[in-house]
Amino acid sequence: MIFSKLKYLLLTFFVLLATVVVAQSNLKWNTVAPGVWRATAGKPDKFNFYTVIGVHPKIEALAAMTSVHFPLPENEIKATVIDGKTYLRFPLDSAEKIFGLGLNFKTVEQRGRIMRLHVDHYGGQDNGRTHAPVPFYVSSKGYGVLINAARYIDVWVGTAVERDSKHPPAVRDRNTDKNWQANPYSDNIEMLVPAEGAEIIVFGGPDMLDAVRRYNLYNGGGCLPPRWGLGFWHRTPTLYSDKDVMNEVKQYAEHKFPLSVIGLEPGWQSKSYPCTYEWDKNRFPQPAAFIDSLQQKGIHINLWINPYISPDGELYKKIFPYTASFTVWAGLVPDYSMPQVQKIIGDHFYKHLLSKGVSGFKMDENDGFDEWLWPDVARFPSGNSAEQIRQTYGLMMQKMTTDLYRKQNIRTYGLVRASNAGASSFPYVIYNDYYSHPDFITALINSSFIGVLWTPEVRSSPTAEEWLRRMQTVCFSPLAMINAWADGTKPWSFPSVEKQVQEIADLRMRLIPYFYTSFADYAFYGTPPIKAMNLIPGFNAPVTTSGGALNSTENPYAKAVKQEIKDQFMVGDNLLVAPLFTGQKSRRVILPEGKWFDFYTGKYAGEGEVITITPGLDIIPVYVRDGGIIPMMPVVTTISKEKLPVEIRYYGHKASSYNLYDDDGESYDYEKGKFTRIKLSVTKDKNGELKGEVIIPKGANVWSYSNFSWNFMTK
Amino acid sequence: MIFSKLKYLLLTFFVLLATVVVAQSNLKWNTVAPGVWRATAGKPDKFNFYTVIGVHPKIEALAAMTSVHFPLPENEIKATVIDGKTYLRFPLDSAEKIFGLGLNFKTVEQRGRIMRLHVDHYGGQDNGRTHAPVPFYVSSKGYGVLINAARYIDVWVGTAVERDSKHPPAVRDRNTDKNWQANPYSDNIEMLVPAEGAEIIVFGGPDMLDAVRRYNLYNGGGCLPPRWGLGFWHRTPTLYSDKDVMNEVKQYAEHKFPLSVIGLEPGWQSKSYPCTYEWDKNRFPQPAAFIDSLQQKGIHINLWINPYISPDGELYKKIFPYTASFTVWAGLVPDYSMPQVQKIIGDHFYKHLLSKGVSGFKMDENDGFDEWLWPDVARFPSGNSAEQIRQTYGLMMQKMTTDLYRKQNIRTYGLVRASNAGASSFPYVIYNDYYSHPDFITALINSSFIGVLWTPEVRSSPTAEEWLRRMQTVCFSPLAMINAWADGTKPWSFPSVEKQVQEIADLRMRLIPYFYTSFADYAFYGTPPIKAMNLIPGFNAPVTTSGGALNSTENPYAKAVKQEIKDQFMVGDNLLVAPLFTGQKSRRVILPEGKWFDFYTGKYAGEGEVITITPGLDIIPVYVRDGGIIPMMPVVTTISKEKLPVEIRYYGHKASSYNLYDDDGESYDYEKGKFTRIKLSVTKDKNGELKGEVIIPKGANVWSYSNFSWNFMTK
Repeated sequence: MIFSKLKYLLLTFFVLLATVVVAQSNLKWNTVAPGVWRATAGKPDKFNFYTVIGVHPKIEALAAMTSVHFPLPENEIKATVIDGKTYLRFPLDSAEKIFGLGLNFKTVEQRGRIMRLHVDHYGGQDNGRTHAPVPFYVSSKGYGVLINAARYIDVWVGTAVERDSKHPPAVRDRNTDKNWQANPYSDNIEMLVPAEGAEIIVFGGPDMLDAVRRYNLYNGGGCLPPRWGLGFWHRTPTLYSDKDVMNEVKQYAEHKFPLSVIGLEPGWQSKSYPCTYEWDKNRFPQPAAFIDSLQQKGIHINLWINPYISPDGELYKKIFPYTASFTVWAGLVPDYSMPQVQKIIGDHFYKHLLSKGVSGFKMDENDGFDEWLWPDVARFPSGNSAEQIRQTYGLMMQKMTTDLYRKQNIRTYGLVRASNAGASSFPYVIYNDYYSHPDFITALINSSFIGVLWTPEVRSSPTAEEWLRRMQTVCFSPLAMINAWADGTKPWSFPSVEKQVQEIADLRMRLIPYFYTSFADYAFYGTPPIKAMNLIPGFNAPVTTSGGALNSTENPYAKAVKQEIKDQFMVGDNLLVAPLFTGQKSRRVILPEGKWFDFYTGKYAGEGEVITITPGLDIIPVYVRDGGIIPMMPVVTTISKEKLPVEIRYYGHKASSYNLYDDDGESYDYEKGKFTRIKLSVTKDKNGELKGEVIIPKGANVWSYSNFSWNFMTK
Repeated sequence: MIFSKLKYLLLTFFVLLATVVVAQSNLKWNTVAPGVWRATAGKPDKFNFYTVIGVHPKIEALAAMTSVHFPLPENEIKATVIDGKTYLRFPLDSAEKIFGLGLNFKTVEQRGRIMRLHVDHYGGQDNGRTHAPVPFYVSSKGYGVLINAARYIDVWVGTAVERDSKHPPAVRDRNTDKNWQANPYSDNIEMLVPAEGAEIIVFGGPDMLDAVRRYNLYNGGGCLPPRWGLGFWHRTPTLYSDKDVMNEVKQYAEHKFPLSVIGLEPGWQSKSYPCTYEWDKNRFPQPAAFIDSLQQKGIHINLWINPYISPDGELYKKIFPYTASFTVWAGLVPDYSMPQVQKIIGDHFYKHLLSKGVSGFKMDENDGFDEWLWPDVARFPSGNSAEQIRQTYGLMMQKMTTDLYRKQNIRTYGLVRASNAGASSFPYVIYNDYYSHPDFITALINSSFIGVLWTPEVRSSPTAEEWLRRMQTVCFSPLAMINAWADGTKPWSFPSVEKQVQEIADLRMRLIPYFYTSFADYAFYGTPPIKAMNLIPGFNAPVTTSGGALNSTENPYAKAVKQEIKDQFMVGDNLLVAPLFTGQKSRRVILPEGKWFDFYTGKYAGEGEVITITPGLDIIPVYVRDGGIIPMMPVVTTISKEKLPVEIRYYGHKASSYNLYDDDGESYDYEKGKFTRIKLSVTKDKNGELKGEVIIPKGANVWSYSNFSWNFMTK
C-alpha cells in the first residue's frame, strides 16, 4: 500500500474532535497498600463496592509479601469518559491468559469472551449474568485488575481489535487463506462502565496466586468460618415443624451420620414469599427452647430468608418508607443501602432470631431471576439506581448480617445467592438452583479467582451413582450440605451407596483440622481454601482444540473449540481432588510438577504428567503433593469443645512443614491475636530417614487438640 | 392492616425528592398521521430510526382506514428522565396479550418476558438479542407502541409489579397457599431507554392487524419486490468461478427446476473477510459478460457482501477517515451514518456492480456475533455511539443499497442479517446461521408483527425427510432459496424426495401471482404478506399450560409452561400453511372461525376447530378460507415478460372477490400509479350457483397475464 496511514489517522482524529465530547483521563496510580495501586477515571459514583462493604485492607499481611512493581505498562492502560460512560482499555500479551470475571459455570479461562457483568441467577451461559459477576480479573502474568464500580460493566476480553493497534492481526483472505480465523488476534481487554467514571485497582503478584491473595487481603482477608460451619449440614423440608426436625436429628444420630447444622427452609416463618422473619406459631411454638435443645446436641441452626417483606408482620410499617417503588412476590424490597434499613431489619433479626440462638442465614433470591425481581426502572429511596442496588444487594445483606454477629463477637457461616467484588471477608457461601454437577465443579474452581465461596449443594438425584458422586464433591467444598427442602432426601436415601456416602461424610469430618487451617490461610494470607489448578505453579494443562471444520449448519465460521481443565481442583495447599461424574468410569488427572501420592494409600501416583485412572464408585480420587502433611481428627458427628487427638498424615519423601491453625473456633478473638499455629515439621536425618515433629509455641493455647501421632503414608 | 398507606407513600415521596434528580415528562400526544400519535419524553437523541431511514408515511392509505381514537388511557402512560436514562411505563389490561418486540425464534406471545433489545445474531434465547430487535409491540386490544430510539432498550412485559399499583397482585403465602405464583400479576410494560429522552409513537387499530398495518404504512408501506425476486433462488459454493456457475445453471435447466436468482458467495470478490467489493479476476474475469449471459436466460445475480473493508482494494484509502476505531476481521468498519460513506461506497458499488448488471445483495454479518464485531467502546467519526450504530447498521446498509437502485428506477430484492424499526419498505429479507427448522417458522410468524421479512433458508439436511420439509416451508416464505455456499447441495441432492421437492418449487412458481399481490397489499395497505395466526380475527388458540409441579432440581419455583401456537401461519389473506417437521407424522391444525378447505383438493376441512391430520411426506398442508380466491400461473422456471394465462382457483361457497395486482414487475413506476388491480369476483345467482367474473378496469394496462380461467375447487 503506497499511502500514508498517518495522514488518514490525522484526518480521522479531526473528524472525531469535531463531533464528540471526550474527556481523556490521565490515570495516576497511587499506592494504596503494598503491591496495590489505585487510579481514578472521570468522576466515579460515590456508591461502590468498597463503600458498601467498608472493609479494611490487611496491610501487614500485604507488606509481608514479595515486593513488586506496578505490573502493567502504564501507557497501555487507557481511560476515557464519553457521554456519561467510561471507556477502559487494558493491554494483553500474546500468551497471556485471563481468569476470573465472575462466577462462571462453563469456562475457566476467559480470554476470547464477552460479558456484561450483571447479578442474576446463572442462566446457562457464561455471559456475565451470574451470582457474583465480580469485575476482577487475574492474569497468568501475575497481576489482577478490579473495576470498583457497582454497574453493569461490559467486558471484551481479547476479542476487540483496535484499528490503530501496535499489534494488529494479519489481514487474511477467507477465500483462499487456510489460516483465516473467525477471531483475529486482539491485544487488549476493553470495558465499558455505564457511569461518568470508575475507580481502578491493580494488584501485583509476582504470581497469579499472589495477585489473588492481594485482592483478598485488600478486601480484609478471607472469611474464617466457625469450626462448626465445616461440619455436615442438612436442610429439612420446608413445612417441617420443630417435632419433625427433632425426629430428623434423631434419625441422623441413629445413623451416626455427621450433623453440625440444621437448615430450616421458608416454613419456619409465619409467612414467606414475602417474608415476616417471624416464627410460625404452629410449627415452631417455642423457638428458643427448640434451638436450645439442638444446641445441647451440638447442632446449630440456620434459617432461610429472602429479602421481600410481607404485609403480615411487624416489619412492614417500619420498613415501608425505605423500600423500592416495585415489589417482589408482592413483598416490599428494602433499600439496604440506607442505614435505616440495616437498623430496622437488624433489630428485628436480633429480637426474633439472634437472641433466640439462631446461628446464621441462607439468604435466597437476592440475585434474580429477572422475571420476578424488581426491574431496573425501580426507584430506591436512597437515590441509588436499581442497577447499583442489584449489583450490591447480596453484598449488603452479607454485610448487615455479618456485622450483627460480629457485634456479639460470634462468628456466623451461611449461604447467599448473590455476591460481588470485595466479598472475601464475608462468611457466606454461594449456591443456586442450576443443578449441573460438572458445571457446579467449574464454579467451585472459578470461585477461587474472585474472592467468593461456592458450594455444589446436593438436593436429590435420579440415581444412586449420581447421589454418591455429588456427595463426594460437596464434602470437598467449603460447605458440605444436603438441601432437602423440597425432596426430603436423606444421606441414606440410596441404600446401595449408603456406606460410601457415610464414608465420605466421615472423611469430611476427619479433615476439619485441614479445612480449618486452609480457611485460616484464607483469613490471614488471602489464600483461597479451594483453588483452581491454574493457580498452582507447575500446572501445565495440555490445551487441545477440536472442531474448526467448516459446516454450513453447525459451524459456519469454522470455529475451533478449546478444551480446558475444569474437573479437578486443589483443597488447601496439599490436596488435589479429581471428582468423577455420573457415567464416568475412568478419567484423566493432570498432576502438576513434582511427585504426587494417592491420598488413600500413600502410593506414588505420578509426577508432572497426565494419568488415567479407573477408581471405581467408592472413592473420589484425591492426591497429595510430595511432602504433603494432612492433619486429621477422629470421626465425630458434631463439633464440640472436646479436645481430640490428631493423626498427622505425611505423604512422599520431601522435608516439609505445615502450620496447623487453632483458635476458639467461634469468636472473633483470633483477630486480636488469640490463636495458635502448631508447626508440624518433617525433616530428614543423615540416613534419609524421615522424622516428624510437633512444635507448639511456648505458652500457646491449644483449644482443639489433645495429642498428635504421625502416620507416614508412603512406604 | 390498621395503618395509613398514604402516610408512608408521602414519606417515601419526600425521601425520593431529597435525593434524586427527576424530570417527570408530561407526554403530549400529537397526531402525526391518521390514527398515529407521537409524544416526546425528555430530550431524545437526534439520531433515531426515522432519521436513519428517512421514509415518509403513506398518509392516504392511513386515512382510508377506520378512524380511531387514541387507544390508551393517557394518564396510565408515564415517562420520567433520571440521571440520563428514560423510564417508560405503559398500562396492560388483565386479559391483554402482547406481540412483537423483535424477531423472536421461540416465543410468539411476549407477556411475561424480559428483554434487552440488542442487534445480534440470534443466540438461542428470546432475550432481546436478535437480528431485528424492533422496539415495537402490538396488543391484542388493537394498538401498537413504538419507541423510536436506536438504543439497547430494556423491556419488562407484564413482569414488574409497582408497589403503589392500582391493580396489585394478591399477597400469598408460599408456605400454605396453593395459589401462590412465581410470577405475580403485573399491570404494566416497563422500559428503560439509556438516553436522555425518547420519542414514543402509538398506532391505533381498531384491530391488531390494523395496528400493524398503520405501523407499516407509517414506515412508508411495505416493500414490493421485483417479480423475479419471488422465483427460486440458489446460492452457489463460495469459490465457484463463472464457469462453475454456468454449469450449475445448466444443471438446473436440465432438471427443469425453477431458477430465478443465482447468489454468489464471498469468492466472487478478489478478497473477502475483509472485502474489496471488486471481482476476482481469476474466477470472474469478465463479470459484465457473465451477468449478461445469465440475464439472457432470465436469471438475476445477487452478491454476498459483509461490511468490512479490505486494505487490498480501491475503497480502503477513501473510506479510512470515515471508519470506526476498531476493525472486524482486520477490515475497516465504515460509519454508514455519514453521508460520505454512503457516497463513497455507493459510487464503488455502482461502478463495479450495478453498472455491470448486479441485481442485489446479501448483506451478511452486520448484526453480530459480538465475538468478532466491533465492541461498544468503538468510536465512530460521526460521533454516534457504537450502540446507536450497532442498532441501525443493517438499516443503514438497506437504506443505502435501496436508494442506489431506486436512483436507477430498478427494484432490488436481497437478504440482510440485521434490521430494526422502520424497515418495512426496504426490499430485504432477514436470514441467519441458527438452523432450527421449528424455530425458523416461529421467526416467520413473528416477522409479521414488526415490519420485517424472514426466510427460513435451506442449506443442507441430515435426512431426505428434513430436506423436503425445509423445502416445503421455504417455498411458502418471502424468499425461496437454497444456500449451498458451503455444502454444494442442490434441489435434487436427495433422490428419494426429488419429485416432491420439484413439485413444491413448481407450486411456488405457480403461486407468484398470489404472492405478488400479497406483497402489493404490503406496499399499498401495510398488510404483511406472511401473517401470524394471532393477526387473524376469529383465531382462538387453545392455551394449555404444563408443568407447574414443584421439583427442587428442575423446577424449584413450580413454574407452569404455557404452550402456544407457533407452527402455522397465513400466506396472504387466503392461505393457511401448517408445515410438518422431521419425525412428525401427524399434527394439529387450528382452523379459525369460518369454513376452511384443503388447498390441494378443495375439500371441506373444518370450521373454527382443531383438526388432526396425517398428510404424509409429499405435501405441506395448506388450507383456504371460505370464498378464498387463489390466482395461479403455469409452471415456469424464470420470470420473463411473457404474458401468461391465469388459473383462478376458488374454494368454498361464499361470494367473494380478490384484487389481483399487476405492474411492470421491476420499476418504481407503480408508485406513480402505473399499476392495475384486476378484480376477480365470485357471486351467487338466484339458484345459488357460483359465477366468476374477471373485471379489468377500462383502459388499464395488463403486463403479466394473457387470459383467465376459473377453477371451482370445492365440488
